[in-house]
Amino acid sequence: MLATDYAAQAFDRDIGRLRGMLSQMGGLAEQAIHDAINALQRADTDLATQIRGADKGIDTLQAEVEALAVQIIAERHLADGDLRDVVAALKIAGVIERIGDYAKNIAKRVPLIESEHQIEPITVIPAMARMAAEMVHDVLDAFAARDAQAAVLVCDRDRLLDDFYDGIFRILVTHMVENPATIGQVAHLLFVAKNLERIGDHATNVAEMVYFAATGTPMPERVKTGETR
Amino acid sequence: MLATDYAAQAFDRDIGRLRGMLSQMGGLAEQAIHDAINALQRADTDLATQIRGADKGIDTLQAEVEALAVQIIAERHLADGDLRDVVAALKIAGVIERIGDYAKNIAKRVPLIESEHQIEPITVIPAMARMAAEMVHDVLDAFAARDAQAAVLVCDRDRLLDDFYDGIFRILVTHMVENPATIGQVAHLLFVAKNLERIGDHATNVAEMVYFAATGTPMPERVKTGETR
Repeated sequence: MLATDYAAQAFDRDIGRLRGMLSQMGGLAEQAIHDAINALQRADTDLATQIRGADKGIDTLQAEVEALAVQIIAERHLADGDLRDVVAALKIAGVIERIGDYAKNIAKRVPLIESEHQIEPITVIPAMARMAAEMVHDVLDAFAARDAQAAVLVCDRDRLLDDFYDGIFRILVTHMVENPATIGQVAHLLFVAKNLERIGDHATNVAEMVYFAATGTPMPERVKTGETR
Repeated sequence: MLATDYAAQAFDRDIGRLRGMLSQMGGLAEQAIHDAINALQRADTDLATQIRGADKGIDTLQAEVEALAVQIIAERHLADGDLRDVVAALKIAGVIERIGDYAKNIAKRVPLIESEHQIEPITVIPAMARMAAEMVHDVLDAFAARDAQAAVLVCDRDRLLDDFYDGIFRILVTHMVENPATIGQVAHLLFVAKNLERIGDHATNVAEMVYFAATGTPMPERVKTGETR
C-alpha cells in the first residue's frame, strides 16, 4: 500500500467524521425549529425552556467541527477539492449554529406571546416553519451527497419562503391595526416570522457553500437569493 | 539567520496582512452603520442605495481573509498561539461580514419607513446606533492590541445596549398603539432597533474570540451576554 493511499484513507475518515457531526447538528437544528413552533402553538413554556438546553448541544458540536477542521487543514496536505470540502464543513457548522440560535430565539418569545386569547395570525406560522425546516434538511442532504443541483433547488425555494414572509408581515400589521390591544404580542410574532425567513436565508447560504465545494465554482448569481430582507 | 526566524518573519507578515484586512473591514462596517442611520434620519434613499455597494466591499474582503487564513493554516506549521490568532481572524471576518449585512438591512428599510410625517420615535435610534458602532470599533482595537481586558469591557457594554433596545421596543409598541396609521412603518423601525441590538451581540461574540485568541482560555461565563434576545 502506498503512502498516498494511507493519506487518502485518513482523509476519508476525517471528512466522514465531519459529515457525521454536521448531519447530527442539522438534525438538532431541524428538531429545534419544530419544537419551537410546537411550543409557540401550544403556549408550552416548558418545551420552550428545553430548547435552550438542546441549543447548547449544537454549540458544542460546532466547536468540535471547527477544531477538527482546523486540525485537518493544518496536518494533512490536502488537494484543492478536499480542502474546499473541509472549509465548507467548517463554515456550514457556523451557519447551523446560527440556525439553532434563531430557533432558540423563537422559543424565548413563547412566554411573551402567550395570552388567554390565542392570537389568530399565529395559525399561519407553522406552515412557514415547516418550509424553513425542510430547506435546512434538504441542504444538508445535498452536502452529504455533494449534489450541486440539489443545492440550487434549495435556493429556488427561498423565494417562496420570502413571499410567505411578506404575506405574514402584511397579515400581522393588519392584525395590529385592527386589534391594538395585541400589538405587544404580535410584535414578537413579527420577529418569529423574521427568524424563520432568516433560517431560509441561512439554508440558502449553505446551499451556495455546497455548490462551491462540489463544483469549485460559485453558484451563478441569478439563483442566489440569500440576503437579509 | 535560522530557518525558524524566517518562518517567524513570514508568519508576522501573514498575520499583519490579516489584521490590516480586518481593520479595513471593521472601518467599512462602522461607516455602513453610521451611513444607514443618517440615511434613515434624512430619509435619504440615494445614500441607502450606496450602502449596498459598500457592503460588496466587505464581502470581498471577507472572502480574501478566509482564503488567506486557510492558506496560512495549511502551509505553515503554526504554534498554538499563532494558530489561535489565525482562526480568530477567520471567524472575526465572518462576524464583520454579518455586521455589514445588518447595516445593509437597515438601509433597505429606509424607503419603507419614509413618509411625509417624520415618525417621532425615530429620534431615539441614532444614539443606539452610535453605541453599537462604538462597540464594533473598540472590539477591533482590542483584537489589534491582543487586549483581553478591553474585550471584556466591550461585553459589559452589551448589557447597556440591550437595555436601550428594550426601552426602544416599548416606545415603538406604545407609538403603534397610539398611532395605528403608522404601524406598518414603525414595524420596520422595530427591525432597525433589533438589527442594532444584534450588531452589539456580534461585537460581543468578537470580543469572546479576541479574549480566547489572546489568553487561550474562554471568557468567563458571567461576562458573556452575546445571545439573541
